[in-house]
Amino acid sequence: MADALSPIRETDDDARALARRLLQGAAIAALGVIDPATGAPFVSRIAFGLLPGVGAVTLVSDLAHHARAMRIDARVSLLLGEPGPKGDPLTHPRLTLAATARWLSPTPSERARLAEAWLARHPKARLYIDFTDFHFVALDPQSALLNGGFARAYALGRQDIMLALT
Amino acid sequence: MADALSPIRETDDDARALARRLLQGAAIAALGVIDPATGAPFVSRIAFGLLPGVGAVTLVSDLAHHARAMRIDARVSLLLGEPGPKGDPLTHPRLTLAATARWLSPTPSERARLAEAWLARHPKARLYIDFTDFHFVALDPQSALLNGGFARAYALGRQDIMLALT
Repeated sequence: MADALSPIRETDDDARALARRLLQGAAIAALGVIDPATGAPFVSRIAFGLLPGVGAVTLVSDLAHHARAMRIDARVSLLLGEPGPKGDPLTHPRLTLAATARWLSPTPSERARLAEAWLARHPKARLYIDFTDFHFVALDPQSALLNGGFARAYALGRQDIMLALT
Repeated sequence: MADALSPIRETDDDARALARRLLQGAAIAALGVIDPATGAPFVSRIAFGLLPGVGAVTLVSDLAHHARAMRIDARVSLLLGEPGPKGDPLTHPRLTLAATARWLSPTPSERARLAEAWLARHPKARLYIDFTDFHFVALDPQSALLNGGFARAYALGRQDIMLALT
């Protein structure tokens, strides 16, 4: 009976490889933050990428609601793994990453290096990447829940995720 | 200068029509809840649909982490509007819906009617829709933030959303 089973399986190398593929392959994510005005959750779409020497990163405008929220409460959740146009989207693998937002303060030359790496993944960001209200924010992983499809869930620790980021 | 502008435009009929299209067209959503164990946000993928006489609905298993969370704190956020495989996903329109989760307690005949309407939209759910741990949960809208692409954001009130649901 489904309701007598724990939905969490033991994490194995296949699960770690799938988590790695989702983290490395994601260009966008659904970001969950705590809305500072209400304390309720708030989900929006962000750009996502792994940058050398930093790890998981997003690029946000100060104008974005989620940017203001992350400055007040740095605890965030990211859903990674976009379903394609075919197949059942609920059996498509996805990863929920619990992370802490850390605002980066790069020197001009460090920022140029981050921007170059970011643009290799997000070429359309060239339009706004140098606007003064845009900032790189590291998303330091804490834990993750991997959903490999119906009844295939795995809990990943920080160590598993750090390995998947490299 | 971008950072001197409010990113929220005045809601017009085009914005309402776009919100309606996103709500009517969504089969899945990214759901944000408050994780009861930590108080942090938690985002996962859910099935989504509009059902006659109810409005926005999801079908969840008691085993799902988000189901347990919604029973403790009913405040949720939904991100609707999946980007296609082409184009810039960050200019693809999407809607963030603030809603309250309401667990439905249908009679057997009411549930059969809900299930029939749900299966018309989610035929693969036939595999598990009758499992005893699966429940319909109404997602009663409170407000929404519509993002029609770069620098095209609109705040929608409950009235705007209720109209878009019908």
